[in-house]
Amino acid sequence: MKWPEGVTIKEVGPRDGLQNEKTFISTDDKIAWINQLSESGLKHIEITSFVNPKWIPALSDATAVATGITKVPGVTYTALVPNLRGLERAFQSNVDEIAVFMSASETHNQKNINKSIDQTFPVLRDLVRETIMAGKISRGYVSTVFGCPYEGHVKIESVIRVSENLFEMGIAELSLGDTIGVANPKQVQDVLEVLLKRFPADNLAMHFHDTRGTALANILVSLEMGVTTFDSSLGGLGGCPYAPGASGNVATDDLLYMLHGMGIHTGVDQHKLLHASQFIQEKIGRTLPSKSFQAASSALGGTLGSTV
Amino acid sequence: MKWPEGVTIKEVGPRDGLQNEKTFISTDDKIAWINQLSESGLKHIEITSFVNPKWIPALSDATAVATGITKVPGVTYTALVPNLRGLERAFQSNVDEIAVFMSASETHNQKNINKSIDQTFPVLRDLVRETIMAGKISRGYVSTVFGCPYEGHVKIESVIRVSENLFEMGIAELSLGDTIGVANPKQVQDVLEVLLKRFPADNLAMHFHDTRGTALANILVSLEMGVTTFDSSLGGLGGCPYAPGASGNVATDDLLYMLHGMGIHTGVDQHKLLHASQFIQEKIGRTLPSKSFQAASSALGGTLGSTV
Repeated sequence: MKWPEGVTIKEVGPRDGLQNEKTFISTDDKIAWINQLSESGLKHIEITSFVNPKWIPALSDATAVATGITKVPGVTYTALVPNLRGLERAFQSNVDEIAVFMSASETHNQKNINKSIDQTFPVLRDLVRETIMAGKISRGYVSTVFGCPYEGHVKIESVIRVSENLFEMGIAELSLGDTIGVANPKQVQDVLEVLLKRFPADNLAMHFHDTRGTALANILVSLEMGVTTFDSSLGGLGGCPYAPGASGNVATDDLLYMLHGMGIHTGVDQHKLLHASQFIQEKIGRTLPSKSFQAASSALGGTLGSTV
Repeated sequence: MKWPEGVTIKEVGPRDGLQNEKTFISTDDKIAWINQLSESGLKHIEITSFVNPKWIPALSDATAVATGITKVPGVTYTALVPNLRGLERAFQSNVDEIAVFMSASETHNQKNINKSIDQTFPVLRDLVRETIMAGKISRGYVSTVFGCPYEGHVKIESVIRVSENLFEMGIAELSLGDTIGVANPKQVQDVLEVLLKRFPADNLAMHFHDTRGTALANILVSLEMGVTTFDSSLGGLGGCPYAPGASGNVATDDLLYMLHGMGIHTGVDQHKLLHASQFIQEKIGRTLPSKSFQAASSALGGTLGSTV
């Protein structure tokens, strides 16, 4: 098997990780945590979401967070944006990159965005155009690529159609989301085989949730297929607090453990991130799902991870 | 990537999974659980360990368990045995297969068995000879293949030497153990590349612990290298109860989710195992680490998994 020499990690913990948490993390704590992340060597951090605060109260302080952090040169700070109103707020907060999102399955798109897939295209087109005109980077998310909570199987034709539309709009990178964490390595291989005939590997990122424990195996196959950019969330944040053991995004900690063990370069300092995981675990007040974080905490005599 | 059509799963939950649990599972509950396992389509179940009950009080009822279960034709029931006294008890209990064990690292072998590696060989040689003479199957475990809690890195020469000795004794299968769950896919590839030049893939099994979340990725690489037999533990039992989130053996549930999703045949009924996971979770009284079990429980409206 052939694996790449280096991998780019895009940390989505402050946005995807925190957005469903019951515990509100204070603005000061969010800022402190994001500053820890940017000092660890991570070069891409999705810091918040400029959605209507009524939808996602956990991120209602988006502007304060985005303007309060200490920007590290060389780090790209990203915000999720659903519409022009959010884009305006994101521009005012001077983020570097705008992420837009939609789903590959009609029902999930309808429930999440309140529009059909076809109705969503013009909205995102405006966002991407404005983003590029403002000299910022544009990133696209496709959700439910590997399965939909409402429809089950998602047709590859729908993934292709949404992906093509997003690239035609001008996004620099497309992140393929396993939103409900159902993908298996064979499916990842099958989907990537089709997509890599149409889009360069360098413009694709994989966004796995570890709901069923398969995320690292899915990443391994993606690496073998030539994809080298992965979204992940520190500590595995993003799980549903109501489902014991359920996990959110693949944990940055686990991903780094695997990649560094394989000799794959990421530029990230694992030790610094260990403290950032501990910091956010204490603020969240529950045990984070990342296994390598928990193992590392235990190895340090339980001084880390012992408070919750 | 090429994956096999079928995989053999060796369930080690009743032995490796339960041996470190603080909660004593009653003999009747162990028997009921093993009977559930054997009705799920699993063809290999390691049911107990005939060690000195002082060492492992959790399995002090080995004889009662081994003689109390309902044997399903076609299922191989295995017991772990450390010495001739244990072998005698195992024979009296009429198990089908005897598993012997030692470590690839000197310090772990010394601490675990109280003998050097060289002192262990004649003991195991006697056990394997007696096992074969009794018409039973003999299985060998090598621990600390991918790392030792005392020595760190373990030399491949030591793994080869222990493996060669065990095969020369007459074991039918060698299980390569990542005892402390440190392996990564590159390391698995490197180790298997060396071992598969010396031993047929059909005589090797992989025994991964999921302490750092890499077990399924390690299994995926093993599959690609041609290994088709894997040890696993229902629910991911076997984690240290003192380390929150820490995980033991790779969960049978997670392994089945991945393999079946990839179209790889195992002969095991996932739905039946879901109930067996729920049963043992209730008896253990803590949330089992298997992510796909927790996801499946939640999907069933929380009726499974909601009691702890």
